[in-house]
Amino acid sequence: MHDDSATDAQPADQSADSTQESDGTDGDEPADADEFTVTPYDVDGTVDYDRLLEQFGADRLTDEQVERFPDHPMLRRRVFYAGRDADRYLAAAEAGDTHSIVTGIGPSGPMHLGHVLVFYLAKRLQDETGAHVYVPLSDDEKFYAKDLSFPEIEDATRSNLRDLLAVGFDPERTRIVVDRLDADAVYPQAARVAADITQSTVDATYGDPDNVGLSFYPAVQATHLLLPQLVHGRHPTLVPIAVDQDPHVRVCRDVAAKERFDVDKPGALLGKFLPALDGPGKMSSSSDAPAIELTDDRETVRAKIMQHAHSGGRVDIDDHREHGGDPSVDVAYQYLHTFFEPDDERVEGLAAQYRSGELLSGELKGIAAERIGDFLAEHRERRDALGDLESELAPYRLTEKERSRLRPSVFA
Amino acid sequence: MHDDSATDAQPADQSADSTQESDGTDGDEPADADEFTVTPYDVDGTVDYDRLLEQFGADRLTDEQVERFPDHPMLRRRVFYAGRDADRYLAAAEAGDTHSIVTGIGPSGPMHLGHVLVFYLAKRLQDETGAHVYVPLSDDEKFYAKDLSFPEIEDATRSNLRDLLAVGFDPERTRIVVDRLDADAVYPQAARVAADITQSTVDATYGDPDNVGLSFYPAVQATHLLLPQLVHGRHPTLVPIAVDQDPHVRVCRDVAAKERFDVDKPGALLGKFLPALDGPGKMSSSSDAPAIELTDDRETVRAKIMQHAHSGGRVDIDDHREHGGDPSVDVAYQYLHTFFEPDDERVEGLAAQYRSGELLSGELKGIAAERIGDFLAEHRERRDALGDLESELAPYRLTEKERSRLRPSVFA
Repeated sequence: MHDDSATDAQPADQSADSTQESDGTDGDEPADADEFTVTPYDVDGTVDYDRLLEQFGADRLTDEQVERFPDHPMLRRRVFYAGRDADRYLAAAEAGDTHSIVTGIGPSGPMHLGHVLVFYLAKRLQDETGAHVYVPLSDDEKFYAKDLSFPEIEDATRSNLRDLLAVGFDPERTRIVVDRLDADAVYPQAARVAADITQSTVDATYGDPDNVGLSFYPAVQATHLLLPQLVHGRHPTLVPIAVDQDPHVRVCRDVAAKERFDVDKPGALLGKFLPALDGPGKMSSSSDAPAIELTDDRETVRAKIMQHAHSGGRVDIDDHREHGGDPSVDVAYQYLHTFFEPDDERVEGLAAQYRSGELLSGELKGIAAERIGDFLAEHRERRDALGDLESELAPYRLTEKERSRLRPSVFA
Repeated sequence: MHDDSATDAQPADQSADSTQESDGTDGDEPADADEFTVTPYDVDGTVDYDRLLEQFGADRLTDEQVERFPDHPMLRRRVFYAGRDADRYLAAAEAGDTHSIVTGIGPSGPMHLGHVLVFYLAKRLQDETGAHVYVPLSDDEKFYAKDLSFPEIEDATRSNLRDLLAVGFDPERTRIVVDRLDADAVYPQAARVAADITQSTVDATYGDPDNVGLSFYPAVQATHLLLPQLVHGRHPTLVPIAVDQDPHVRVCRDVAAKERFDVDKPGALLGKFLPALDGPGKMSSSSDAPAIELTDDRETVRAKIMQHAHSGGRVDIDDHREHGGDPSVDVAYQYLHTFFEPDDERVEGLAAQYRSGELLSGELKGIAAERIGDFLAEHRERRDALGDLESELAPYRLTEKERSRLRPSVFA
């Protein structure tokens, strides 16, 4: 339980009147403000988070649900603002019954600041209620979807694994699974799932796939979301995920409903995109500004924020002092609000000072740089303390006994 | 080298004027005799084996090529009648360089007589020239394509494995790979391949797939055909395969041509369908007659052939004595000719006696039943002598060293 009054603080809302731009690599046409499409591979147009819920059929989290979760700024401040079947998860967590979180990453490069936050949220849920945490790394999907070689993807995998290990999950209750590395366990289950996903479902959900890997991948991702149940038996699962990834959850929920599987539909915790530095309406993947990387030192973080963070302040200092700034479109403020200033009173104080003109844009940026720098220094310290990757990862990998539940039983 | 004169004997030719019927499960409409489609999932219409070669762009085997292969009735008599890149394979075999055969099976039930012949051909090629033989079992595809449960497929897998082990391959030069059981090695490579196979290629080659497993499976099958080269390095590979499976080979050859892979295009040895008992124009999968199973005893084989084998003889004995029978549409004769009477003089003698009316249909059937019974008794004896499946299979499975070449190198 925690003080719920902080939910009065308005979370940064990218939908306000910002324009979501398409990924620069696909051409930079500004989207029609009245239209938007959100799929895991394409975010175009202005994202209306409420309309998304309607479209996807998910539910806004209630105050009562947020109260029941372990306290965390991303929940309290509704960065994760909606869900599916959150009550079942909460009931299991409260009763001390088995409950799981699944949250993964696609290893296409170094992990960015925006990627790691959800893992810290998962760790918090694990620490408080003993949740199992499953972390799939989709090295296969990155090959299907991106113009990357496997050596490049393997580099990214090594780097991402180190960051995941630095989070400090409980190895007893955490499993890190790499699709190709753990294919002995993943593929046999993905094959089970694949027979229940039609090509037309994939086409309708994701658009026409470029290659047959992308056709198949939804079966692999559905398998990720079912893994905790396939290993430990039927129980409530929650998938904290950016709302643009919800189609994967829905495909999996349809599969889970088939007779073939003795599983609950995985629940979801749907979040807003962490904005790129250069705009509240841009995801980091569609931004020209550099992302803050987990290996950035204090000076680099400071320089990136000072130079690139979109400001909600006035251009002229006197004007700012007189009329104040707008925290709701200020990226430095959004970063503090999303995660980096966990104290509600302090974050509200910063918003008030900024709105009044007392706090300048550069000062706000400086505070954000400081907090993010603190966070990264601690993360980096744990990361640097890690030994050999294979040995460090070993206690987090599926055990032989767990694998045997996932493999085909030809010799059983 | 062997006596090539036997190629004068006409192999049973199902294309003559028989009508290939569609699989009963898909409706039993007779196909237009002028049209035919051949895919791994659908054989409709009258199959014209010459036109197929034109359509598929493969080459009829020359007498000189057949001379260079180790002697075997299925080659001598042109049951395998066409190929792709056979010369490269033959050159490597003659030079003592690495060369491989890939021939697999989909475990959907007990192995039939028609399935096992190609494995004995592969063993012959291995015995004579030291070919590596790779035998993939597509337990995944059977799940995607058939209405079978995994326990049923696993039963079939166990049974098929015993029959494969009974063939007596050299374990040093033979690898038996089960897609889901060996997914640690197969899936990482299938993922590499999948990025180079477009969904539209699959749609055009196989028709619209029902589920995303069938979309992906061509990548798995292409991986099968590349496995010997991915394990042992670039070398000529030959895939003896019923001509209806040629689309898989062509998809793989296109993949192999990409820069990503340091492999030769796999070659092919294309064969005619072994007819079902009840018709020279029917594959066993589209027949209502029982198939001869590898576990059938002499009496059962005899009863099945006597009752169901389509006869090329006359209904009336006197008529038959006077005008003779037609071996080219007589299934008992075709079985003898394809495989079970390896002596060319004797098989030609039987054809001549049958044509002259000297040999009655029942007598010809009796001879076929005898030869097939002999073959099955020897096969069964080897099969029954096998011990525990897991231990027997162990020397035929990919070694750790071989697997390490196929797995992703995350910790390398």
